[in-house]
Amino acid sequence: MNADDSAPLCSKFQWAFTLLGRPWTGMIVRALLNGPKRSKEILQMIPNISSRVLHQRLGELEGAGIVERTIYEEKPVRIEYGLTEMGRTLEPAMDEVQKWADRWCTEN
Amino acid sequence: MNADDSAPLCSKFQWAFTLLGRPWTGMIVRALLNGPKRSKEILQMIPNISSRVLHQRLGELEGAGIVERTIYEEKPVRIEYGLTEMGRTLEPAMDEVQKWADRWCTEN
Repeated sequence: MNADDSAPLCSKFQWAFTLLGRPWTGMIVRALLNGPKRSKEILQMIPNISSRVLHQRLGELEGAGIVERTIYEEKPVRIEYGLTEMGRTLEPAMDEVQKWADRWCTEN
Repeated sequence: MNADDSAPLCSKFQWAFTLLGRPWTGMIVRALLNGPKRSKEILQMIPNISSRVLHQRLGELEGAGIVERTIYEEKPVRIEYGLTEMGRTLEPAMDEVQKWADRWCTEN
């Protein structure tokens, strides 16, 4: 931590939390950390998210450069969502959040 | 990462992100990592947050066990907000988010 207690917080930190702090965003990134997925697979990994909200968040993450969409010209067309390098480098942050949750979460 | 791609994500992870993902929450925790603060000091550290929203979030964080409020019986009464042990152990996660933001944020 910076020793200057009253300095305004780094705007990059604010940017990151504004981006990652939207509902479901962290879980979607985590779901993609072990490889690209179809939206149907992501829906299975995240209980309670709706398909509409999932696609909304995937679009935002794509716009931010964290997620990339690959279209496979098969029949039927297959669309997969994966992390960019920017997305993959979120893993240490995701891991630390998981460790903290494991220690402190009292829900089951 | 777990090798089982289709397993539902740990509910603790969801709990942590639901808790930390609310607007400003991450920044408030970060502001308190280097010691207890009065709300006026926190307001100086987080540009754009309103006093009303700050107190709302502080109340939520207190309810979650992350923040504790200490009242000093002075004149005028002094109220400080600090992190509990649960809150302090968020530091590694906060640090990783900061590192990621430093690398990828293109806003100044």
